[in-house]
Amino acid sequence: MRNIFIILLLFALQVEAQDKRVTDWVDPFIGTDSFDNNSLPGNVYPGATYPFGMIQLSPDTQKDILVVCGGYYWKDKEIYGFSHSHISGTGIADLYDILVMPTCGKSAELLDKLKTPDKQIKSSFSHKNEYAEPGYYSVLLNDSKVKVELTTSEHVGLHRYVYPSKSKKFVVVDLNHGITKDRKWFPFKLLDGYSRVLNDSTIIGYRFATGWARLRKVYFALRTNQPISHCSFITWGNVLSTKNTVAETWNDRPLRALLEFNSDKKDTVEIKISLSTVSSENALNNIITETGRKDFDKVKEDTQLAWEKELSKIEIKGDLEQKKLFYTALYRTFLQPNNIADVNGEYTRGDFTIGKLKPGEPYFTQFSLWDTFRAAHPLYTILQSQRTAQIINSMLDFYDVKGILPVWHLWGVDNYCMIGNHAIPVIVDAYKKGIRGFDYSRAYEAIKGSANSSHVFTSYPMFLDQYGYYPHDGNIHESVSVTLESSFDDWCVAQMAKSLEKYDDFSYFYNRSKCYRNLFDIKSGFFRPKLKNGSFFAPFDPYSYYGDGQRKFYTEANAFQYQFSPVHEIDTLVEMMGGKRKAMLLLDNVFNDQKKDTIIEENASGFIGQYAHGNEPCHHYAYIYNYLGNHRKTEEQLQKIVKSMYRPTPQGLCGNDDCGQMSAWLVFTMMGFYPLNPASGVYEIGTPFLPYAKIKNDNGSYFEIIAHNLSDKNIHIKKIALNGEICKDYKLTHSDIIKGGKIEFFMGK
Amino acid sequence: MRNIFIILLLFALQVEAQDKRVTDWVDPFIGTDSFDNNSLPGNVYPGATYPFGMIQLSPDTQKDILVVCGGYYWKDKEIYGFSHSHISGTGIADLYDILVMPTCGKSAELLDKLKTPDKQIKSSFSHKNEYAEPGYYSVLLNDSKVKVELTTSEHVGLHRYVYPSKSKKFVVVDLNHGITKDRKWFPFKLLDGYSRVLNDSTIIGYRFATGWARLRKVYFALRTNQPISHCSFITWGNVLSTKNTVAETWNDRPLRALLEFNSDKKDTVEIKISLSTVSSENALNNIITETGRKDFDKVKEDTQLAWEKELSKIEIKGDLEQKKLFYTALYRTFLQPNNIADVNGEYTRGDFTIGKLKPGEPYFTQFSLWDTFRAAHPLYTILQSQRTAQIINSMLDFYDVKGILPVWHLWGVDNYCMIGNHAIPVIVDAYKKGIRGFDYSRAYEAIKGSANSSHVFTSYPMFLDQYGYYPHDGNIHESVSVTLESSFDDWCVAQMAKSLEKYDDFSYFYNRSKCYRNLFDIKSGFFRPKLKNGSFFAPFDPYSYYGDGQRKFYTEANAFQYQFSPVHEIDTLVEMMGGKRKAMLLLDNVFNDQKKDTIIEENASGFIGQYAHGNEPCHHYAYIYNYLGNHRKTEEQLQKIVKSMYRPTPQGLCGNDDCGQMSAWLVFTMMGFYPLNPASGVYEIGTPFLPYAKIKNDNGSYFEIIAHNLSDKNIHIKKIALNGEICKDYKLTHSDIIKGGKIEFFMGK
Repeated sequence: MRNIFIILLLFALQVEAQDKRVTDWVDPFIGTDSFDNNSLPGNVYPGATYPFGMIQLSPDTQKDILVVCGGYYWKDKEIYGFSHSHISGTGIADLYDILVMPTCGKSAELLDKLKTPDKQIKSSFSHKNEYAEPGYYSVLLNDSKVKVELTTSEHVGLHRYVYPSKSKKFVVVDLNHGITKDRKWFPFKLLDGYSRVLNDSTIIGYRFATGWARLRKVYFALRTNQPISHCSFITWGNVLSTKNTVAETWNDRPLRALLEFNSDKKDTVEIKISLSTVSSENALNNIITETGRKDFDKVKEDTQLAWEKELSKIEIKGDLEQKKLFYTALYRTFLQPNNIADVNGEYTRGDFTIGKLKPGEPYFTQFSLWDTFRAAHPLYTILQSQRTAQIINSMLDFYDVKGILPVWHLWGVDNYCMIGNHAIPVIVDAYKKGIRGFDYSRAYEAIKGSANSSHVFTSYPMFLDQYGYYPHDGNIHESVSVTLESSFDDWCVAQMAKSLEKYDDFSYFYNRSKCYRNLFDIKSGFFRPKLKNGSFFAPFDPYSYYGDGQRKFYTEANAFQYQFSPVHEIDTLVEMMGGKRKAMLLLDNVFNDQKKDTIIEENASGFIGQYAHGNEPCHHYAYIYNYLGNHRKTEEQLQKIVKSMYRPTPQGLCGNDDCGQMSAWLVFTMMGFYPLNPASGVYEIGTPFLPYAKIKNDNGSYFEIIAHNLSDKNIHIKKIALNGEICKDYKLTHSDIIKGGKIEFFMGK
Repeated sequence: MRNIFIILLLFALQVEAQDKRVTDWVDPFIGTDSFDNNSLPGNVYPGATYPFGMIQLSPDTQKDILVVCGGYYWKDKEIYGFSHSHISGTGIADLYDILVMPTCGKSAELLDKLKTPDKQIKSSFSHKNEYAEPGYYSVLLNDSKVKVELTTSEHVGLHRYVYPSKSKKFVVVDLNHGITKDRKWFPFKLLDGYSRVLNDSTIIGYRFATGWARLRKVYFALRTNQPISHCSFITWGNVLSTKNTVAETWNDRPLRALLEFNSDKKDTVEIKISLSTVSSENALNNIITETGRKDFDKVKEDTQLAWEKELSKIEIKGDLEQKKLFYTALYRTFLQPNNIADVNGEYTRGDFTIGKLKPGEPYFTQFSLWDTFRAAHPLYTILQSQRTAQIINSMLDFYDVKGILPVWHLWGVDNYCMIGNHAIPVIVDAYKKGIRGFDYSRAYEAIKGSANSSHVFTSYPMFLDQYGYYPHDGNIHESVSVTLESSFDDWCVAQMAKSLEKYDDFSYFYNRSKCYRNLFDIKSGFFRPKLKNGSFFAPFDPYSYYGDGQRKFYTEANAFQYQFSPVHEIDTLVEMMGGKRKAMLLLDNVFNDQKKDTIIEENASGFIGQYAHGNEPCHHYAYIYNYLGNHRKTEEQLQKIVKSMYRPTPQGLCGNDDCGQMSAWLVFTMMGFYPLNPASGVYEIGTPFLPYAKIKNDNGSYFEIIAHNLSDKNIHIKKIALNGEICKDYKLTHSDIIKGGKIEFFMGK
């Protein structure tokens, strides 16, 4: 009888485990704090959003952001309101469109406060009254005692405010909320702001701003579920009369609206807000078409189902901590790119003209390509094959109007932040993997054109023809990194050229892809900056992040973090370094060198020796050992990195998540493989951190990853079987995964 | 025989005189200098343009404009290039889009120079090598010896550059030319600039900038009549390779292109450039559709015919000086408003969405309404009845998207510069005059809505309901002027309300139109600023332009220049002043008071006592005498003003022409009448300065103005006959003019 009871109990637990949604494992607070004093915060936001959706509705706990770019920092004690657009995990901040904040109090006092530009209606809050899951966020505002709940559909942010009963119900809308106004570089500045009361439950308007994105057009529409009894606009120190249904601002003047709700019967106010890059009419249409009569709860339910569907594309087994880490990481990779096309298919193109897609088709933005080409996009080729094509089509649309592929595409505008043009590997990788849904010849034209085009910050390919490298004295910032990463992009162009039998192009770009070799200094074993006259710049300090003080040599990095950069020619690199043994010693040294303090420098963070896991350039380093035949060292470093750099807590990320790249690294790594060369379709085997994972391919097939005998002690791969056949090269290909099957890791001590 | 010869000669001379085009009398250089040291420059530009056209292609002789807003100043010695958009005669500067400059020299030296942002390819020039007429401008650049000729069609600027033979032929295109970058208020800043070589004779691109207009989208297309052999983009200190066919800039970084033409056979390069608010595709279409295969000479011919047609709407007799003054003034009133709709009918609306008219229909901008509602728009109701309706439709389109009529509409964007909302009198005047082509009920909704709407700088109508005036301590700048001019606008709304039988509205606005009375200080005879508590602000200095030092009381004026502001209730004003005799003494005093120096203050300039003809608020003062029954004094002051304030020379304007208002005043005044109340349809008789004028009405009728016996000595009207009947009230109505007929002035000593 007792046995039966235990069996039943086990069965019940299993049922419960099966019924539990994968979204329940996601903790949006992971990474909202700093890992430690020596690390940058994850810069992720905990708010509500839809997979790859337009709206990121999240609390802003900062007034003037310098470092914390997600708008929210775990250590902050106050909330300034809830804005509708955020970027996940970047090192530079922007967006935060249309801040909304509920409050109570007296109308006159609030208006008086709102007349003073510096004064904000903020509230303290406590983490114990805060809750977040995919598509949902809630908090209790201590000052007003308003309970705030947020959810979103793809294009619409929904607020539900529960006011203390019998209190006055106010909502403040701030059009000039920017957070980054005091930043020295690319400060937020409102160029033009407009708001208009359409009727007693609808307000429309727009704001155009310059910031990290040089010019963003953000239209909005706001609808309430009960009549607004009063709407006062407050601008430039004056409160406009309620007769006055329009208000404008520009040149960074403040513009806020105070909405009052008088209904005595209800303590709850629900607000829907949508954005548009095209018109406030479109924003209103987004609300009506997408959410119609759906209330908060229904939208929340639909959105959470959408998240469940996306995140269920990988099924895993593991302990609670592993599940939290894994699904939160997967969640973070699916936060962007973001579809900013309106429901009717209209969107603002790269040249600020209006494009028109079929209703429902997406136009994607938020491409942090210097980060995400490494692992996030390869992950999308597996889990988001349709979206990968749509992402590429968005990139090609940008190329059509601008003649260059996007580099850092933000709200549809390129800020050309970071070096190279890593839309090229994304496109070539997708092409090589046979992703359908984009025009290959148009895509080839775009990668070739872009490889020959300059973008303002750092890339002027004419230097490659002239010098064979980017000369440090050629008015080029980060000349070593630019040379290295452009070489990789050129290799990608060459691959596609060859495949399309464009042999002249192949020859040109293949030759150019070797340019990185010209900066290798055999003596030091590092890539070093060179001058136009062919000599290396001296003095040289491989630990330094700051170049000659005026211009940096490396991108957010020192010489160690770019020492193994050319993933397209590791064999040649190894040769230049004097062979495998010597190369491996150099690589060991990166992880072991403690000669100089490793403190946050530029965006480098999360150090193991000179290896910086909190930034991207050396994300592939641990896998190089496997490539060089020393799988054991790969395992060793991965164990170290995963265990020391990720935690299922707000202090869980050792650096900026960078639009999912840090997370994508973890998703791959926990499953046991990683795209060392992200345009090769080949994955190096690392070591599995999960006993079981099942990838549900878009074509309906499954790929299972089974780690036999995995335990705390059994962390070494003894043998690998791919579909039952022994896998000796410790590699996996994209087609292995996509055609379905299984890989088995046989683990031991 | 000899008699016959003389008769033939006289006949030939007459034929010649008749053959002479009226455009020949226009001298675009009039007013390009300052009248004297005590006056502001006219701020007009001498370049080529089309009546009410999109393009104003004119030389820019200033690098950093503070005062000279037309881009050109007669005293300047150097030309920086030729840009495609200018405003005529304003006190604040903006536009100057797409600077083009031909030059010779060596490619390497030029590139070297262009790499340095501060260095510009400029040239000295001499007025003796300069020539201008409507639709045409030419100059010889002394440094390069390039002869430059400019003409325009409605949407396209044409350049013809004749290079010294055998010299290298270069053209520099500067995307970041702004002139007003060093200005403290609303400096020009390039937000986004883009250029792309489409083929060997076509370049497209855009620039988005903030300046006086908070955000302007300016697309362009450039076509050459011979192949560009090299196009180098120079940006951020680098010269991009010619392989690189795109270039971008933002955050005010420079972007210039150096075009080289190699054709050895030709020394002449012709370039066509068009702008668009919508897309570079539209700009290119403007060129192709509008100028097709037309060369420079053909476009020039067509444009000059268009000018001839417009200016011939008034035929005059008079001496050379009078003809130059009159036709140049008429020319200046027809420079704007400007049609910025593309040839295909597309344009950017007030909310930056795209509007679409029938191809060829105009969308007008450049509304300097605080100036032009006084006389320029009334002049358009006579000479441009169709365009008046189109102008109003453009205003209503703005209202549709913004909920407020335009105040100062620049490149389609409102900067809300200046007080009141003087689109209201323009619309009401047109309505009362029966101008057809706009929807009266939609127009009424717009004027009523606007009269109840605030705009940021100075107008918050809720103060009128609360206090009956704009209180100086109500965070209101120029509170006296705002009260006075809003009262007039409200009177206009009331007039239309009455006519449409909206009696509640009539009553409300009619009452509000009396608000100005609340600021009249019987003791001083001036309108004075009042505080919220009902007391006048003290101390009070009627000569001061600067209010309390923090906030001004009057708009670009002192108390004298607003003393007779309420043109809608002169009778009441006179009553408040203590009767006609006392009022007339006060008016005399304005013209006679020399107690304080009259130097340039704010935009006031062109002084006669405290009367400032170089600015707008007292433009109607001389005509008040006639209204009060003392026609002789009107004549006296007008003789003084016309003779002392206008000259047919570069020093010909005593203040900013202000988009044609100074000129429209002269056109009316020289013909002998003026709209004292510009929304009344009634003109006060002044005194004729021309022996004969014939207005060719749009309906085909003529209105003749005949001054019998006019001579230097016979400058007083002895008798007036309107269509043969004696006119005793010395007034003329709009319908008198429009139905055709003649007015005869019988002049004597």
